[in-house]
Amino acid sequence: MRRVYMDYSATTPVDARVVEAMLPYLTEKFGNPSSVHLWGQEARAAVDHARQQVAALIGARPNDVIFVSSGTEANNLAIRGVAEQWAARGRHIITSTIEHPSVRGVCQLLEQRGWEITRLPVGEDGIVRATDVQAALRPDTVLVTIMLANNEIGTIQPIAEIAAIVRQMRARGCSHALLHVDGVQALGRMRVEVEELGCDLLSMSGHKLHAPKGVGALYVRRGVRLAPQMIGGHQERNRRAGTEAVPLIVAFGKAAELARQELETRIAHMRALRDRFEAGVAERISDVVFNGDRKRRLPHITNVSFRYIEGEGLLINLDLQGIAVSTGSACSSGTLEPSPVIRALGRDDELARGAVRFSLGKETTEEDIDYVLDVLPRAVDALRRISPLYQKAVAEGRAKQLLVPTT
Amino acid sequence: MRRVYMDYSATTPVDARVVEAMLPYLTEKFGNPSSVHLWGQEARAAVDHARQQVAALIGARPNDVIFVSSGTEANNLAIRGVAEQWAARGRHIITSTIEHPSVRGVCQLLEQRGWEITRLPVGEDGIVRATDVQAALRPDTVLVTIMLANNEIGTIQPIAEIAAIVRQMRARGCSHALLHVDGVQALGRMRVEVEELGCDLLSMSGHKLHAPKGVGALYVRRGVRLAPQMIGGHQERNRRAGTEAVPLIVAFGKAAELARQELETRIAHMRALRDRFEAGVAERISDVVFNGDRKRRLPHITNVSFRYIEGEGLLINLDLQGIAVSTGSACSSGTLEPSPVIRALGRDDELARGAVRFSLGKETTEEDIDYVLDVLPRAVDALRRISPLYQKAVAEGRAKQLLVPTT
Repeated sequence: MRRVYMDYSATTPVDARVVEAMLPYLTEKFGNPSSVHLWGQEARAAVDHARQQVAALIGARPNDVIFVSSGTEANNLAIRGVAEQWAARGRHIITSTIEHPSVRGVCQLLEQRGWEITRLPVGEDGIVRATDVQAALRPDTVLVTIMLANNEIGTIQPIAEIAAIVRQMRARGCSHALLHVDGVQALGRMRVEVEELGCDLLSMSGHKLHAPKGVGALYVRRGVRLAPQMIGGHQERNRRAGTEAVPLIVAFGKAAELARQELETRIAHMRALRDRFEAGVAERISDVVFNGDRKRRLPHITNVSFRYIEGEGLLINLDLQGIAVSTGSACSSGTLEPSPVIRALGRDDELARGAVRFSLGKETTEEDIDYVLDVLPRAVDALRRISPLYQKAVAEGRAKQLLVPTT
Repeated sequence: MRRVYMDYSATTPVDARVVEAMLPYLTEKFGNPSSVHLWGQEARAAVDHARQQVAALIGARPNDVIFVSSGTEANNLAIRGVAEQWAARGRHIITSTIEHPSVRGVCQLLEQRGWEITRLPVGEDGIVRATDVQAALRPDTVLVTIMLANNEIGTIQPIAEIAAIVRQMRARGCSHALLHVDGVQALGRMRVEVEELGCDLLSMSGHKLHAPKGVGALYVRRGVRLAPQMIGGHQERNRRAGTEAVPLIVAFGKAAELARQELETRIAHMRALRDRFEAGVAERISDVVFNGDRKRRLPHITNVSFRYIEGEGLLINLDLQGIAVSTGSACSSGTLEPSPVIRALGRDDELARGAVRFSLGKETTEEDIDYVLDVLPRAVDALRRISPLYQKAVAEGRAKQLLVPTT
């Protein structure tokens, strides 16, 4: 059976060149970067080099990059770090309704501890309005946390516009807010330059970028102070204790370097295949709705709601045919609730439950796409045949006929 | 030049069998364990298997093991997790004066936030008295955190005895204290069984055990509740959010399995070489003091104070001759203060500053030891020759003659 991985938003395979770069740091160059001797210095130099590579990918200074263990940790450190550091200035945070579970979770925790959270809605296009941010900013706002691009539908938020507003309000003394951006899903799938974005903090994750799971980073603009969350060692200039995960950091550095070199090629590749996929879906399957803005979005995600069926059922059906897709964030899978992101677009329950995310990567091929375009319509048909919702819609003359004849 | 690594307490090389076990999880088996499809299930199964392997090493149930990113994170999660969870019951914590920087650091942070910390002294032998724990326990004590074996001098604490007291006091309603044990340095160097120890929480680290840096674990006895520190995903049964670092977790599992199988052999190997080394040092170098109890200790660490010289100077001298040692915890290197652990033994400043840690591993050979025994006396002599302290001692008739003639 052919196997096609179309869940690159959940995680990516490690690039062979990245594996090669990290291997020596598992074996012969295994020193602890905090050690004074040669082994330690060798490891320290490797971490420094990787820091430069990651910084270069986002146009930052190396010293502004803190290595952590995951995108989730980066989000935790950014949001809790700023909230705790500046609690005396205010306890108001602005976020959106379509953030990643880690941002949502930390905001909830802070809410329980007395912070006030304003959650900005998005339009049907999945995009936060910069004017809404402006209206929500207050003198006691210490943080605005909005993702760069959404992990389920891929829409890109107007961060530069939001940053301009946040800075303006800060300059006027109308707010103390810093701007945190969850860049995990965007990195390696669009140009990400912290100076252009104007953000104060940016979360990154290695495993969405062909580095291994277990490493991430937080960009912290020079001069921005935040309370460390991991305590007990001088590592990362006292901002994140714990022995540096040298092989993973080296891997992340190499992956960042490759992403920078190959960004345009990768984007063009993913976009072409994504467009081919979407055209095929629109042509071959009736009653589908594409979720999220069609223009302002990442090149690798298609999120489709299939009317009358459950996304979870389709996922399992495709899985049995070797195709990997998902119904929402991997970090929230296991819950039976429809995706809060799709709900936030104003979709009804049926469309939210029928949503499936197809996400592509640099390894995806035309043959992969064509295989999925062959299997998918029949899978959707099969599920609709046994769907009471579909039968009702046919009876009422709302549903179109199945396109694929029963064989 | 021959290179001899004698800093296994700081970190260890990854075992070739561990590298082999983890490699497939970087490349073909790269799924996110939270994904529902085949790739995800494959990764989930690997994490489950590794959890069994780590649990088996310490005689725990797999569900009682939480994977984290480092020993430091395990210590943070244990101490902050318990302190925050049970703050309403009391804000008193008991610890010792010779804990790892991460335990010391978290205790300091909690102290700043209103917790009261009792720091128990150790004797000249480096061992905490169980009776001191008993005397310090109070109705508002929520946690006792004492390491299993010290990372600088290797002394083993009477944890089972302390656990019996903690439980007794709990049973009598005289305290609510849980017992956390930092087992990072002990794991793989002595038998560690949570039921025998009687602890409620145990911190572990992969990279001290021939797994890569970037993974650790916390054992949490069934029924013990603690406040999560990493928020935002359902991973690790809601106790630690963030995509599981699958390749590292697989590596840690394999390393744990090997450590369990080879424990006795490794201990015998390290102990024999350690004894050979200590006999050689005692024979060839005058005015040395071995730090820590000579019996109740791990088999791989020798901590020696060389009178009249600075440990840091000796470290650099040896480094230039290809030998890696350390003067204290790698996590506190860079500070110019003498080791607080050696100070806690009651040693004067001179002896604390002259302390050097030599730590061995399963890869250490007799030839390594003999090479160091050849280089070390001359290095010590060379430093003493230029030491004002030494010259003063000679003039006063306190110092012995140098054993190695000038060449």
